[in-house]
Amino acid sequence: MYLMRIGATGAEKPVARIDDDTYVDLSDTVSDFDETFFGSGGVDRIRPLVAERAATGRVSRFAGERIGAPIARPHQILCIGLNYSDHAAETGQAVPDEPILFTKSPNTLVGPNDDVRIPRGATKPDWEVELGIVIGRRTSYLDSVDEARGAIAGYLVVNDVSERAFQMERGGQWAKGKSAETFNPAGPWLATTDEIDDVLDLGMWLDVNGTRRQDGNTKTMIFDPYFIVHHLSQFLVLEPGDLINTGTPPGVGMGFNPPVWLEPGDVMELGIHHLGSQRQNVLGPR
Amino acid sequence: MYLMRIGATGAEKPVARIDDDTYVDLSDTVSDFDETFFGSGGVDRIRPLVAERAATGRVSRFAGERIGAPIARPHQILCIGLNYSDHAAETGQAVPDEPILFTKSPNTLVGPNDDVRIPRGATKPDWEVELGIVIGRRTSYLDSVDEARGAIAGYLVVNDVSERAFQMERGGQWAKGKSAETFNPAGPWLATTDEIDDVLDLGMWLDVNGTRRQDGNTKTMIFDPYFIVHHLSQFLVLEPGDLINTGTPPGVGMGFNPPVWLEPGDVMELGIHHLGSQRQNVLGPR
Repeated sequence: MYLMRIGATGAEKPVARIDDDTYVDLSDTVSDFDETFFGSGGVDRIRPLVAERAATGRVSRFAGERIGAPIARPHQILCIGLNYSDHAAETGQAVPDEPILFTKSPNTLVGPNDDVRIPRGATKPDWEVELGIVIGRRTSYLDSVDEARGAIAGYLVVNDVSERAFQMERGGQWAKGKSAETFNPAGPWLATTDEIDDVLDLGMWLDVNGTRRQDGNTKTMIFDPYFIVHHLSQFLVLEPGDLINTGTPPGVGMGFNPPVWLEPGDVMELGIHHLGSQRQNVLGPR
Repeated sequence: MYLMRIGATGAEKPVARIDDDTYVDLSDTVSDFDETFFGSGGVDRIRPLVAERAATGRVSRFAGERIGAPIARPHQILCIGLNYSDHAAETGQAVPDEPILFTKSPNTLVGPNDDVRIPRGATKPDWEVELGIVIGRRTSYLDSVDEARGAIAGYLVVNDVSERAFQMERGGQWAKGKSAETFNPAGPWLATTDEIDDVLDLGMWLDVNGTRRQDGNTKTMIFDPYFIVHHLSQFLVLEPGDLINTGTPPGVGMGFNPPVWLEPGDVMELGIHHLGSQRQNVLGPR
């Protein structure tokens, strides 16, 4: 299934995407794609309902509604740093021995085509197309990497927008440069794991103003999604609906010489094979 | 007012503490001390109700109920690192130029007397008595430090339990050593700001097995609560009910020579003047 939330900010309704034109409305049976939904087996519960409604023509047509993030604001947004070897190289940092964990404020989550706003005082705003993992059940101390497969609800596109000066030059911990409002566009849809044949072979890309800046593939990840979920579960408890941004391939602004930073008026377009694409206008500080 | 949540884990009821023996039950009018409560002016709304019930004898007697954290699981737990100059010295790190921001998983929040569990694989579990700030309204880009006074709902005791090896030796970002389950005891109560004459002169202490390990005062903070809230509001949006741990005074286990780490069977007791005290049994890994 492909889960989406459509409608105005704060009033999105949960739906299952059938194709580019049609969806099954689930708002009569699901209050939201949130911690309660994922934690109570919601994905498996709606599966026959979606199939039955699709088969009997109980579908609706998209009518230009805004697309929200495909999950409600999660308990936490965890991020893995420097998880593509060639991206680590472009930042001048060593390939890590194990996943580097940092966080974003959960209220950074916005829809895939919502505006991204440069924060006040920013000098180095940057982009990062990433594969996002949504956790499907409460997860702690997984015994094996393989067991992590059962803990994942699905995958989505995220833009892990970053302010490099805030991230690197304001105390050393990265959260300060990752948590500005609008800094985590997500979607357009959450693909449940059964829809993705090989999560380790997904092409991904990001353009700024029509120029291709990132052109990667999940096959060059250092730590794959199962490794990451198993690893994190040794340090903290993952809640259903939690979002994990798994790191970005090469081509971020800080990797160019000279660096290229986002500016008001820029347009970011990005996507991952099977997971759809996003488009954000970049606004100046409010 | 002194807000508390009492009862079994996950079923706490919101009350206002009158004194050591009695409280006003608010569960008929408040669903929880959560983001919605703080964001809708809940503190001011219940103030006359608590006064009226206390004046007319509509009080209950504490009967040994478990005490929960005085706030529901927040949107985020933000932490300030190395915020006491003598604590920075004992860790061998420089006094920071500005607040260092890191985070804890919100599901680390537990009651003030709940057990603290050492995570699997831990070698350096440690304690940190801290002043916690609870945010009272949605807060972004405060114009002045003084304006931060209006953004704070109140203060409480927190134990920012830490695993130093996970924090320092597992990738460099601190979140990995701060986010294990049970790592954020909070309470016993949230004192609203009007109850605290001078937040910059509060004695604080922490004992392990009856030995005084930390003996400090908020007057030696480098960045005070108003500075911190103003500063953070420049980088991210604070939500009502968010918790900020403001750093610890000297005397943590890593500061001793040789270091002293928590072990199963240890008992931590800690407190802050006017904000009450906590007592946690330390358990081994599950």
